[in-house]
Amino acid sequence: MELLKGAAVSAGIRQEVETLIKDLDRAPVLAIVRVGEKPDDLSYERNAVKKMEAFGLKARSYVFDAEISDADFKKAFVKINEEPEVDGILVLRPLPKQIRETDIERMIDPAKDVDGISPASLAGVFAGDETGFAPCTAEAVVEMLKAYGIPIAGRRAVVVGRSMVVGRPLAMLLLKENATVTICHTKTEDLPAVCRQAQILAAAAGRPRMLGRDHVGKGAAVLDVGINVDPDGNLCGDVDLAAIEDIAAAATPVPGGIGAVTTAVLARHTALAAGRRKKAAKGRRG
Amino acid sequence: MELLKGAAVSAGIRQEVETLIKDLDRAPVLAIVRVGEKPDDLSYERNAVKKMEAFGLKARSYVFDAEISDADFKKAFVKINEEPEVDGILVLRPLPKQIRETDIERMIDPAKDVDGISPASLAGVFAGDETGFAPCTAEAVVEMLKAYGIPIAGRRAVVVGRSMVVGRPLAMLLLKENATVTICHTKTEDLPAVCRQAQILAAAAGRPRMLGRDHVGKGAAVLDVGINVDPDGNLCGDVDLAAIEDIAAAATPVPGGIGAVTTAVLARHTALAAGRRKKAAKGRRG
Repeated sequence: MELLKGAAVSAGIRQEVETLIKDLDRAPVLAIVRVGEKPDDLSYERNAVKKMEAFGLKARSYVFDAEISDADFKKAFVKINEEPEVDGILVLRPLPKQIRETDIERMIDPAKDVDGISPASLAGVFAGDETGFAPCTAEAVVEMLKAYGIPIAGRRAVVVGRSMVVGRPLAMLLLKENATVTICHTKTEDLPAVCRQAQILAAAAGRPRMLGRDHVGKGAAVLDVGINVDPDGNLCGDVDLAAIEDIAAAATPVPGGIGAVTTAVLARHTALAAGRRKKAAKGRRG
Repeated sequence: MELLKGAAVSAGIRQEVETLIKDLDRAPVLAIVRVGEKPDDLSYERNAVKKMEAFGLKARSYVFDAEISDADFKKAFVKINEEPEVDGILVLRPLPKQIRETDIERMIDPAKDVDGISPASLAGVFAGDETGFAPCTAEAVVEMLKAYGIPIAGRRAVVVGRSMVVGRPLAMLLLKENATVTICHTKTEDLPAVCRQAQILAAAAGRPRMLGRDHVGKGAAVLDVGINVDPDGNLCGDVDLAAIEDIAAAATPVPGGIGAVTTAVLARHTALAAGRRKKAAKGRRG
């Protein structure tokens, strides 16, 4: 089984991003919006900041108290949204319960929506057009497949999980690449049998090592989006990698797989957003 | 094989619509926007008008010359969109090439978008929430299944076709009902084998009788969204009904199947839109 490693794919995206930045007058700026101090958020933020800096972008963290009111947060969010220097906005989610997250999804400037949370971005992903940015994790899966030369068109792809953050958008991105896509979830009957038919199996269920030997067909490529902590406190994915070693043709490790590509895609989206904003501003100036 | 007939399902929806209309001060109004005189459009319009009148709604046709310019059409469309008496708008598509259809999709008031063409409506369908209305044909398929008591949750559903008018939204509506959904298309390898796994097979490819004996598993429910004219000039669906009679458990005829349910769903959406608009207006008046 070949290990599909994120670092190599990320390095390839880095070159693209450097080319994009050369055409700009300044480093693109990503605003990272965090409410509270959840360990998951802090870890994701740390990785994102590191990646932006390594790729020649700037990251600015906007941190709010976990108890902030809906009204106060929205007031602050409007300011970040309108900040001329900010090219992209990443909102660490889920937000605390008192904040109406769907309102924030509708408020975010689609031009700065680099992680695909707005209805406009998601409608574009659904339609398979280029209107907005796709959620970075979903795009990272397709990026990984392409970078390793794994064919997608015509192949049977199975996505386990149907969240709006990964599962559904990933299904649409694979469909755009002409895969025959099946979406599975907690209500799927005989999940192992459905998964075994996959030539490309993407795990985005968020349950530690839930996919094992029974779920993987001979020669499949297995993409693991899960980032979980197992009962022993170790980081692990949704796939039991050791159990599928002699069945799968290729699989992503966790950590070291999709995660590194996700932040690289985030950097690319932010650089692209900066380029589009520059072009739009030029257009307005005539 | 049981024939799944649209008329019975439509009659059930009629009762719902009558109840909805009782709560209104006036008959809900559907604006039908047609550019040119294409036979398909004329036939759909005729059926829609007949259904609206039968269900106690009003239909108003807005007809434009096939050669109308993009600018002139948009000017007229804005007026229809803002017309206070209009509760729902049905745009007969595709529009002629000189009109930028994606602009119209973005212009339509989501509150009046009874056939789910706006990005806001489609983002809602994608997410599985209740933000807007789904495309009527896609919803008609689910309506038919429910009316005939065909279980969806946990079942394997295969949708052939990935248009934004039927295939993709239908996949999302079936997912919302907890089916395990596979989307097939022209690039799918071994389409018959994939289709045979379906307990629910929905044909939305727009190719006359393309699905036959090879594509249907024993006991499947087959839903045919296609409305085609065969080489002999006869109306037919995407499914060769005669060929699957002894294999499928149930199937919709064409004509007489999904079509009748589609216009009934259109009437329900328009009545619902009128009710929501009334409520919103009341809210504004305090």
